[in-house]
Amino acid sequence: MEVDRRHFVVGSSLALSGLAQAGAGNAARPATPTTRRRIATEEAFTTPAQTKAMLALADSSWPSLDLGLWRSRTIDSPMISHLSLEGDRLRLMDQSGIAMQVLSLTSPGVQMFDADLGVAIAEDANDRLAEHIRKYKGRYAGLATFTPQAPKQAVKEMERAISRLGLNGFICNSHTNGEYLDDAKYWPILEAAEALDRPIYIHPRSPSDAMTSAYGKYGLEFAVWGFQAEVGLHAMRLILGGVFDRFPRLKIIIGHMGENVPFHLGRSDTRHNREHAPIKRKPSEYFLDNFYITTSGVTDHLPLKYCIEKLGADKILWAVDYPYEFNQIAVDAMDAAPISEADREAIYFRNAERVFRIT
Amino acid sequence: MEVDRRHFVVGSSLALSGLAQAGAGNAARPATPTTRRRIATEEAFTTPAQTKAMLALADSSWPSLDLGLWRSRTIDSPMISHLSLEGDRLRLMDQSGIAMQVLSLTSPGVQMFDADLGVAIAEDANDRLAEHIRKYKGRYAGLATFTPQAPKQAVKEMERAISRLGLNGFICNSHTNGEYLDDAKYWPILEAAEALDRPIYIHPRSPSDAMTSAYGKYGLEFAVWGFQAEVGLHAMRLILGGVFDRFPRLKIIIGHMGENVPFHLGRSDTRHNREHAPIKRKPSEYFLDNFYITTSGVTDHLPLKYCIEKLGADKILWAVDYPYEFNQIAVDAMDAAPISEADREAIYFRNAERVFRIT
Repeated sequence: MEVDRRHFVVGSSLALSGLAQAGAGNAARPATPTTRRRIATEEAFTTPAQTKAMLALADSSWPSLDLGLWRSRTIDSPMISHLSLEGDRLRLMDQSGIAMQVLSLTSPGVQMFDADLGVAIAEDANDRLAEHIRKYKGRYAGLATFTPQAPKQAVKEMERAISRLGLNGFICNSHTNGEYLDDAKYWPILEAAEALDRPIYIHPRSPSDAMTSAYGKYGLEFAVWGFQAEVGLHAMRLILGGVFDRFPRLKIIIGHMGENVPFHLGRSDTRHNREHAPIKRKPSEYFLDNFYITTSGVTDHLPLKYCIEKLGADKILWAVDYPYEFNQIAVDAMDAAPISEADREAIYFRNAERVFRIT
Repeated sequence: MEVDRRHFVVGSSLALSGLAQAGAGNAARPATPTTRRRIATEEAFTTPAQTKAMLALADSSWPSLDLGLWRSRTIDSPMISHLSLEGDRLRLMDQSGIAMQVLSLTSPGVQMFDADLGVAIAEDANDRLAEHIRKYKGRYAGLATFTPQAPKQAVKEMERAISRLGLNGFICNSHTNGEYLDDAKYWPILEAAEALDRPIYIHPRSPSDAMTSAYGKYGLEFAVWGFQAEVGLHAMRLILGGVFDRFPRLKIIIGHMGENVPFHLGRSDTRHNREHAPIKRKPSEYFLDNFYITTSGVTDHLPLKYCIEKLGADKILWAVDYPYEFNQIAVDAMDAAPISEADREAIYFRNAERVFRIT
C-alpha cells in the first residue's frame, strides 16, 4: 500500500486524522507480530498547559518560524488529540508491534515561554509523564523537559526528574531565543546531564528569528530542510565550542539519521581550524564518542547503511517521530532494512535500553 | 606521508605556503603518472582587481562573515600568490598528474561589490580567464563570473562569456546580499543559463549577515560547517521555489559531495509540503535530474560510495578546490577509491567533458 505522505506534513491543513494514522501501511492486514522488541525513541506528546500556552503564542504577532505550525492548529485539531498521552497511542503501538515509546514534550517544549511559565509547564509535563510511565508499566519511558532560559531552575528540575521521577534523559529543542547550549551560561545544564549520567536529546525546532529571511519560505523552516540545518548547527557548535573537552562523559542524541552531520564528518575534520576552535581532538572523534543518532523520520535504507558503517550500529537508535510520522512505515522500513539481525536488534531496542537505562 | 591539514585551513594565519602545497602528499616520490586523465572542476583563481577590491572591503567595518578570510590576508599572502593564474599552478598540476583545471574566480566573486564595480571586475576576470585558457591550450577550462546584484548586466556578460569568450559555464557564490537565485528578480539569469545550455556552479560563501549570531563563532562560517549549510539551503530554495518547473533544462552544480543534500533526499521527499512549495515533482527528482555534484574537499570514500549509489556516477565530477586543498591528496583519494574503473573515469573526466562541453 502506498501512502502519499506529502499530504501529511507538519503545518499542513491536511493534518493527520486518526483514520490516516491508524490506516497507514496496514490497511486490511493483521497487526505486525511482536516477535521483535521495538523501542521508539523520539515520540511526542503534549499537555493541556503546553497546548494552551502555545496556542496563546500563536495568537501573538511574534514572527517566529516555529509558530507557523501552531497557527495551523486549534484545540480541536486531530494533531493535538494525537499528541495527548492517552487516546489512540497505545492501540496504534500494539497494532504496529511497538513495545515501548520514549516520550518527550513536543517541540519547542517550554523554550518559547518566559521563565516562570516555562518552569511551571515543565514541572507539570514531567509529573504527568512520570505518572503515565507508572500507569502503563513497561510501555513507556520519558525524557524530561527543562527551561534553558532559566538555567538554575533547569538544573533543579533535571535533578528532580531523574532522582524523584525516575525519567530516562532530557530533551532540548535546539536553540533558546537564538542561543545554543555551547554558550557558557548553559554549562550548568550540561554539567547536570553529565553528573546525572543521562543523555540530552537535541530535537529540532525551526531556525531562529534572525534566519527568517533565509529559511522562512517554501516550508524550509520545517522538516524538509530547516530542522536538520538547525540541529546540525547546534551539534557542531557543541563540538567546536569545546563542550566535550569540559564534559567528556556528556551524551547527546540527535535524530533524523544524525541531521546530516555523519555525512560531513570527513570535511569537518580536514577544515577544522584550531585557532578558531581550540579543541583537543578532531570534530569527528567527539561525534563518534559523545553522540548517538536516531532514525526518526528516515526510512531510506542508504543513509542507515552509511551510518552503520560510519558510526557503528551501537550508536543508532530506532525512532518513529509519532504522531508526525507513521508507526507502521517506520516499522516496515526497519524490518526490511538490509542489515544484520544483530545490528537490527541493537538499533531496535538494545541501544535504547542501555542509553536510557531502561530495565 | 601524513599531512596535518588542520593547520592548513581557510582563514588561518598558518595559511598555505608554496612549500606546503608542493610537498603535500608527494614528498620524496616521483610525480603521479598521467595514465589517468584528470579534470579538476572547482579550482580557484583571483585577479589583481578582485584582490584589490576585496582587500579594500576587508578594511571596512562591514561585519560580513566572508570578510574574516580576507582580513587575514594581505597582498603578499602566499594564498594570494597561489590564487594567481600563473605561478606554481601548472607545475603543481603536472606533479599530481592533473590534465586540466576548470577555473573560477574565487569566492565571493564579485557579489559583495556595488553593481558597477562588480560588472567591471567580472568582465576583466572573464577576459583574463579566456586568455589564459587560450594560452595554455588544453590545460584549462573556465566558469564565467557575473553580477547577480545587476541581473540585466549579468545576462549580458553570461552571453558574452559563452558566445564570444568560449567559456564553459558559470559560477555563483551562493547568496547575494542575503538573497538567493530562486527570487524572481534573478530568473533572467537562470533563463540565460538554460538558453545557453551551460551549468551554474553554486559555490560556497559564508552565511549572510543575518546569520552572524548563529554561524559567526568557532570558524563555523567557513568550510567546517557553514559553507555547506549555505549552499545546501540555496539548493533547496531552488528546488522548492519551483525554479526547475520554470527552467526544466537548467543544470546546477554544487561541490563538496553535494553539500549534504544527497544524504537528506529521502526526508526532503516525505516532508515536502505542496501547500508551502507547490512544485510538480518530488524534491529528490529535481536533484537527480538537474544537479551535478563535485568531490571538492571530500576525500572520504564512504560519502563517495553513497553518492554513486544514490545519484549515479554520471552525476559526480572530480574536483580538488585548489589552492584551498591539496592536489595530491585529492588525486590519491580518487585513485584509491574502491569503485569501478568505469565510474572512476566518469568522475575523473568524462562527466566534466560532457557537462562543460570540453572538447
